[in-house]
Amino acid sequence: MPQRVIVLGADGYLGWATALHLSAHGHDVVAVDSLVRRGWDRECGTQSLIAIRTMGQRVKLWHALTGHSIAWRRLDVCDAVGVRRLVAETQPDTLVHFAEQRSAPFSMIDLPHAVMTQVNNLVGTLNILFALRDHAPQAHLVKLGTMGEYGTPNIDIEEGFIVISHNGRTDRLPFPMQPGSFYHLSKLHDSHNIQFACRVWGLRATDLHQGVVYGARTNEISIHAGLSTRFDYDAIWGTVLNRFCVQAAVGLPLTVYGKGGQTRGFLDIRDTVACIRLALNNPPSAGEYRVFNQFTEQFSVKSLAEKVRDARAANRLPTSIVHLPNPRVEREQHYYNAKHQKLLDLGLQPHYLGDTLIESMIELIEQHASRVDPVVLELPNVDWRRGGTPDWKREKGPDQVEPVDVVSPRRHGRRSTPATDWRPPARLAQTR
Amino acid sequence: MPQRVIVLGADGYLGWATALHLSAHGHDVVAVDSLVRRGWDRECGTQSLIAIRTMGQRVKLWHALTGHSIAWRRLDVCDAVGVRRLVAETQPDTLVHFAEQRSAPFSMIDLPHAVMTQVNNLVGTLNILFALRDHAPQAHLVKLGTMGEYGTPNIDIEEGFIVISHNGRTDRLPFPMQPGSFYHLSKLHDSHNIQFACRVWGLRATDLHQGVVYGARTNEISIHAGLSTRFDYDAIWGTVLNRFCVQAAVGLPLTVYGKGGQTRGFLDIRDTVACIRLALNNPPSAGEYRVFNQFTEQFSVKSLAEKVRDARAANRLPTSIVHLPNPRVEREQHYYNAKHQKLLDLGLQPHYLGDTLIESMIELIEQHASRVDPVVLELPNVDWRRGGTPDWKREKGPDQVEPVDVVSPRRHGRRSTPATDWRPPARLAQTR
Repeated sequence: MPQRVIVLGADGYLGWATALHLSAHGHDVVAVDSLVRRGWDRECGTQSLIAIRTMGQRVKLWHALTGHSIAWRRLDVCDAVGVRRLVAETQPDTLVHFAEQRSAPFSMIDLPHAVMTQVNNLVGTLNILFALRDHAPQAHLVKLGTMGEYGTPNIDIEEGFIVISHNGRTDRLPFPMQPGSFYHLSKLHDSHNIQFACRVWGLRATDLHQGVVYGARTNEISIHAGLSTRFDYDAIWGTVLNRFCVQAAVGLPLTVYGKGGQTRGFLDIRDTVACIRLALNNPPSAGEYRVFNQFTEQFSVKSLAEKVRDARAANRLPTSIVHLPNPRVEREQHYYNAKHQKLLDLGLQPHYLGDTLIESMIELIEQHASRVDPVVLELPNVDWRRGGTPDWKREKGPDQVEPVDVVSPRRHGRRSTPATDWRPPARLAQTR
Repeated sequence: MPQRVIVLGADGYLGWATALHLSAHGHDVVAVDSLVRRGWDRECGTQSLIAIRTMGQRVKLWHALTGHSIAWRRLDVCDAVGVRRLVAETQPDTLVHFAEQRSAPFSMIDLPHAVMTQVNNLVGTLNILFALRDHAPQAHLVKLGTMGEYGTPNIDIEEGFIVISHNGRTDRLPFPMQPGSFYHLSKLHDSHNIQFACRVWGLRATDLHQGVVYGARTNEISIHAGLSTRFDYDAIWGTVLNRFCVQAAVGLPLTVYGKGGQTRGFLDIRDTVACIRLALNNPPSAGEYRVFNQFTEQFSVKSLAEKVRDARAANRLPTSIVHLPNPRVEREQHYYNAKHQKLLDLGLQPHYLGDTLIESMIELIEQHASRVDPVVLELPNVDWRRGGTPDWKREKGPDQVEPVDVVSPRRHGRRSTPATDWRPPARLAQTR
């Protein structure tokens, strides 16, 4: 059954790929984004390896190529009034929510970035929950969460809930969570807020705890270069395998943080869009909050680097692996076994990572090699203990306070702009 | 050993009692508050049953009566620069953090109140965490959380962490949480942020998951009427036993929400201040995040109402109990067994609830009976499913949006003021 679907965050890496995929499958898609990510790129001195067209251009091209229409609306989900109008006017069957600040390093730069990440993500999601309650209570919220909410417990990770027996009694309870950055924490806070809204207001939601995504192409994106989605490879926005492939393509060593024993769930971008379609086609009951762990394979970071190296070696292209001091605070040798059965049960047919995919990614990257900026492949410039490197901020005493520009310093010279004293509007905290 | 202690939220019910108690025990106290709570009272049409003096007057009186000095500073913890300066200048041994919006009904009125509660509480706590990291990393953060973070699981509630054995492996993990309002969720979000900061930055914190507090007097407050702390009894700010005692004192029926089988942990205000002193005297190690369940006895709401009725009956004062439709979404018959051993191990000597205490509370209330406003003892005006009653808001279509004044409508007539479009500052969500 075709559905009316709102995709929030449709200008992003996965949001755009999802909007196309759902449109190709006959759904009536409204694509929404504030375009903030393009602004953060300008401020961070980063850019997508693959040039991307404007939303307007891409939507028009999609229509010209396929006859499918995607409605494009610029809107910030932190605009409560705009979100309420959008939901009331669209009356969506499903709302897919990608519209969050999604970089862990970005959230760890300093206090303003931590605050911005948590406030932006929580307020956007609260706006959506209240709009659904009041104007589309039957709609299905598909929320992008992260496997990073779980951390790395020493027991098997279940899909959202675990049955615990304790002192002779038993209950099914939310799986204990140990997120590893202010960004990952924001996703956990969202998860709790959404779960509560389902319980109290009878909303229905699927929380997709997604692993690390790799790849640049889906069936739809492959139709035309003008439909490309963004592809990040820098230390702030890039995911690890994409970054390794770029390093390999330009002949640089693959940089592993610490020992590289950090194990995570991974998936191909083609599986991301399929998972969302499967969730959408199989909605939960009214009042149900469910979690799917959305990944297809587990790898350690070191084993991924070795896969890339080996794929290159098969083509007689030697690639080295170097270990950098880990800027993150995380276990580098740990148990990791996360369940990921529910999406398979709904029919997911995974694209597993193989040498062929790695080679085709590297070939694609080579076509865009002139856009690779070696500077952003250098040492990571955000540390979990100390925050951003000095380039991100001035030295400061108690009176020379942290810069509170909520966007990153400009690239050139990476000098910060004069501090402005950001604080929540006075009414937030105080009435007179 | 006397410590330098910052008490944030020192104008509140428990913050003021704590500041006095720590000062009486020889600690060097800096009392900090934005006074926002007095503003919320004006906006909600509520007031403390017991008149309270200004912070300046109370601090001066305390000094005159005892010779102890409390330094008083007005500051909003959402002011990042102010918090940083406060911590850098004071160099506290301990920072006690009460400075949050702490009413569940207030957070459930509508979207703006939910957003304000979560943003206010999270941003304040993030400001404190970064200030401690940069300027007092050895200081001990004592954070007031709530037993409401746990919800009502069907297993015994442990103190913050639980050992889980699953598929042949075992780990000690955060206790699964199911908070019951946007306020309680904000406390859980704080707990996760604080736990992360301890792990990543080596901070030390005690998260006091406190039960429902009753009583109006500590040893220090009893010295002089001018030292009184606030005493709330309305449906927004009042805790249940305090409210029952006010109803009994003025001859109104005791109003139980639903069946009254809701069971919670309770404690006397004298035990609150003792618990904080015990936590302060026994700090955790660097990097340690610990949770104490801070209550002394469990009661169901119905059994509390019966205790009040029986205490009155012994004085031949008949009191009736009525059951109202429950405005909250919560289980009304459930298992509840929460551990609360750690503070006893540190030496807490509980004041258990007895008829004598109930009678003395009611006697105290009778002295202030002329200030009781029967209107605020009427039906609760916030419902968990629908939000505030119509008095809190206009009827609205998608274009007549929810009022976004982040403070409550004024009391008289309880009409809302014209909506202003609050949203986070543009820079929060978007760069150009």
